[in-house]
Amino acid sequence: MRIAVIGTGSVGRQLAAGFRRIGHDVVVGTRDPETTKQREEWADSDLALVTFGEAGDGADLVVNATSGDVSLEALAEVDLDGKVLLDVSNPLDFSAGFPPTLTVKDTDSLAEQIQRAHPEARVVKALNTVTAAVMVDPGRLAEQTTIFVAGDDPLARESVRQLLSDLGWVDIVEFPTLDAARGLEMWLPLWVRLMGALGTAEFNLKLVR
Amino acid sequence: MRIAVIGTGSVGRQLAAGFRRIGHDVVVGTRDPETTKQREEWADSDLALVTFGEAGDGADLVVNATSGDVSLEALAEVDLDGKVLLDVSNPLDFSAGFPPTLTVKDTDSLAEQIQRAHPEARVVKALNTVTAAVMVDPGRLAEQTTIFVAGDDPLARESVRQLLSDLGWVDIVEFPTLDAARGLEMWLPLWVRLMGALGTAEFNLKLVR
Repeated sequence: MRIAVIGTGSVGRQLAAGFRRIGHDVVVGTRDPETTKQREEWADSDLALVTFGEAGDGADLVVNATSGDVSLEALAEVDLDGKVLLDVSNPLDFSAGFPPTLTVKDTDSLAEQIQRAHPEARVVKALNTVTAAVMVDPGRLAEQTTIFVAGDDPLARESVRQLLSDLGWVDIVEFPTLDAARGLEMWLPLWVRLMGALGTAEFNLKLVR
Repeated sequence: MRIAVIGTGSVGRQLAAGFRRIGHDVVVGTRDPETTKQREEWADSDLALVTFGEAGDGADLVVNATSGDVSLEALAEVDLDGKVLLDVSNPLDFSAGFPPTLTVKDTDSLAEQIQRAHPEARVVKALNTVTAAVMVDPGRLAEQTTIFVAGDDPLARESVRQLLSDLGWVDIVEFPTLDAARGLEMWLPLWVRLMGALGTAEFNLKLVR
């Protein structure tokens, strides 16, 4: 399918490459493609860079891979009408240093804010619980671990579940409502501290029953 | 050692029985021992019930196993001077139903509130990330899983670590500051939703690097 990844940071680049590897037609949306192409990490890339406005055209699925603090602003320029929006972002606030706090939590989530701003989109939260390298290659960890999918629309969840499965995810736990994103985003305060304690971002949780 | 468990609910009872099983001298603190003994689940118990005021006397370690919403009030009556306080509670607010929200989060934690109220205590957060049956018997899950210890006092963390080890915990991740309790308590919003999705409270995360 045609996937538009919004965001040109490390997460966007790794997701775009990962989706292309499993056979999808991928474009990457950015505010100004010419400016982005000047950046060192994009100079040698053959990923297609398009404007936010162009990114939505013909896309079957749009991925929000922007920083949480600019997600609403960036997505405002993307046509999401009827599309599945896979939101992998986190509402991290680094303004007071490390560890970051959350800009939204507990009684609301960034995923729900995005859904409210785009009632015509079918928002699904997933992959925000792991670092980008693990998102697209869960096999790089020592064991199979667990990934989560939350969203109100069953068919949208199923599309994302299939995508995760194609990326190599096996243990996929599904939540039938988008407000479960509150729990998924509130995992981050523990995640960032574990990154410090373990000395690596390449880890994940495996649910053991 | 002598352990005083504060709280006579399901968590307090299971912890008290678990600590006694591994050889400790255990008392359980409650507001009014005579009233507690009238409760069905305490009628046949041979655990020693004492008042909050008596509980701290001679205890080497005090465990806060009360509901988060009454922890500060209950602990106010306990002598914690110089003692290790193992805090297993969570700041869950069920006043609006399920899933609960958190009464404190992100920039503060219940563990830190307790530490501020008792600067003379050596507060350690641990075990709040699992259900009581798993706290005292991690082997009941299909695989070894991960447990966390957070606190400012290295010797207090070591005491708790030894206690967890005696209960059967092997993979123990330590955080050197009590404010990591923010991350441990913010795991609960995902935990409660997983309990719903999995249909059981008997699960835990295993960290996979």
